[in-house]
Amino acid sequence: MTYKRVDFDGGQSMRGTELSVEELEAQGHEVQVSYLYAMQWKSQVDRADFPHLPPDTRLKVAYASAEATASNRLTDDVKREQEKLLWADTVIFQFPMWWMGRPAILKGWFDRVYSLGFAYGLGEYNDSRWGDRYVEGKIQGKKAFLVVTAGSWREHFSARGISGPIDDLLFPINHGLLDYTGFEVLPQFMAYQLDRADDLVFRSVVDELRQRLRTISTTRPIGYRRQNGGDYEIPTLTLKPELGAASGSGFSLHSVE
Amino acid sequence: MTYKRVDFDGGQSMRGTELSVEELEAQGHEVQVSYLYAMQWKSQVDRADFPHLPPDTRLKVAYASAEATASNRLTDDVKREQEKLLWADTVIFQFPMWWMGRPAILKGWFDRVYSLGFAYGLGEYNDSRWGDRYVEGKIQGKKAFLVVTAGSWREHFSARGISGPIDDLLFPINHGLLDYTGFEVLPQFMAYQLDRADDLVFRSVVDELRQRLRTISTTRPIGYRRQNGGDYEIPTLTLKPELGAASGSGFSLHSVE
Repeated sequence: MTYKRVDFDGGQSMRGTELSVEELEAQGHEVQVSYLYAMQWKSQVDRADFPHLPPDTRLKVAYASAEATASNRLTDDVKREQEKLLWADTVIFQFPMWWMGRPAILKGWFDRVYSLGFAYGLGEYNDSRWGDRYVEGKIQGKKAFLVVTAGSWREHFSARGISGPIDDLLFPINHGLLDYTGFEVLPQFMAYQLDRADDLVFRSVVDELRQRLRTISTTRPIGYRRQNGGDYEIPTLTLKPELGAASGSGFSLHSVE
Repeated sequence: MTYKRVDFDGGQSMRGTELSVEELEAQGHEVQVSYLYAMQWKSQVDRADFPHLPPDTRLKVAYASAEATASNRLTDDVKREQEKLLWADTVIFQFPMWWMGRPAILKGWFDRVYSLGFAYGLGEYNDSRWGDRYVEGKIQGKKAFLVVTAGSWREHFSARGISGPIDDLLFPINHGLLDYTGFEVLPQFMAYQLDRADDLVFRSVVDELRQRLRTISTTRPIGYRRQNGGDYEIPTLTLKPELGAASGSGFSLHSVE
């Protein structure tokens, strides 16, 4: 099995990444790492992403992205990341939670690497299916999960915590980005207040993470519903009225136990 | 009354921004605009944000941010944006929804402008209050709201839509960033599938937006709960057990009708 990590690193989480790489290699996996900061990853989508675009043409990101993907004219940095995604069996996204989400540089990784024709706009759109997405997609057969550090307390992200439940905060990534492109999504690994942890706590989190990395193949994925599997009206993509009664409301409607 | 807009612009939404500026100025408001792309806004937080940091010191973003804020050594671009925030009575954040969230450049605006000592880490932390945040904060007395364009269908973002309810998707911004720093948050203005709209639809959206800009002072803010007002346990910041029965679960617990 091969692994790849897409990692946030501001000099902060490198230690965590090194630990994961060491653990995965000790298990005999091959690992590729993308340290976004060390790579000087370009965060924002802009005109420089589409050098083939004539200077007097208005930039329409989706169209430019589709054209560049289809004609193999994406920039080299984006192509390399797409190749890594296709190469890996499992992708781990490790980042610190900043302002309830990913650091901009990692959001920009998705904005740029998830090009039209690679990550979306695939398959047929008709009365019975709405593209190859949500469970289906180019990344099918691969696993992914998030490893997230947060400065706040675990309780703030609990069911009744003021930040909102962590599963809901990460739903747009787990479901809207990873499940969307076909990954089997494993539950996130969370580490809270690590910057204030003493050695004992830190070592126990390290042990938990190692344990998690040893059990990837047996960890149960989040049971997201198949978009084209009959659960949704097409094309409104609303969950059929008879479904989801046991799941509450909102984001939780879109997975089953 | 004065207004400021923080605007995403990849050459795409400039038209929408110009429209808003024109409408607000016609009402006699003073407007400042931050076109992030045109300004070549730096998206990611990195070492260059803290030139005072000795080269051999490890970058710890929160500490470096606190130090730079307290000693007035934030970079000029960040200082200018903070000044605009303090100057404005109302701030409008306009952006296209990319992959369930803001474009990286706008996420990076928050990562950089929301410095420690400016946007967080304010006030006392003790048994009865947990900092000046959530309804309280430096930005108190100002209003803010999001103007968001989305390529997908309105139904996909409805209560049972596959993307999740739009109110939940925007909660981390509305609550975790805007309410957090003290803004009164007005409900977002959404425009769906504008890139496929014909002239008639486009004009009706323009009219709705103009109407919205004319009624800022009378639009009812989202009723987020006060963190330090007695509704939450401190310091776990979990909603007290007797509250929220009428609100469902998750994000919706944190506002009242």
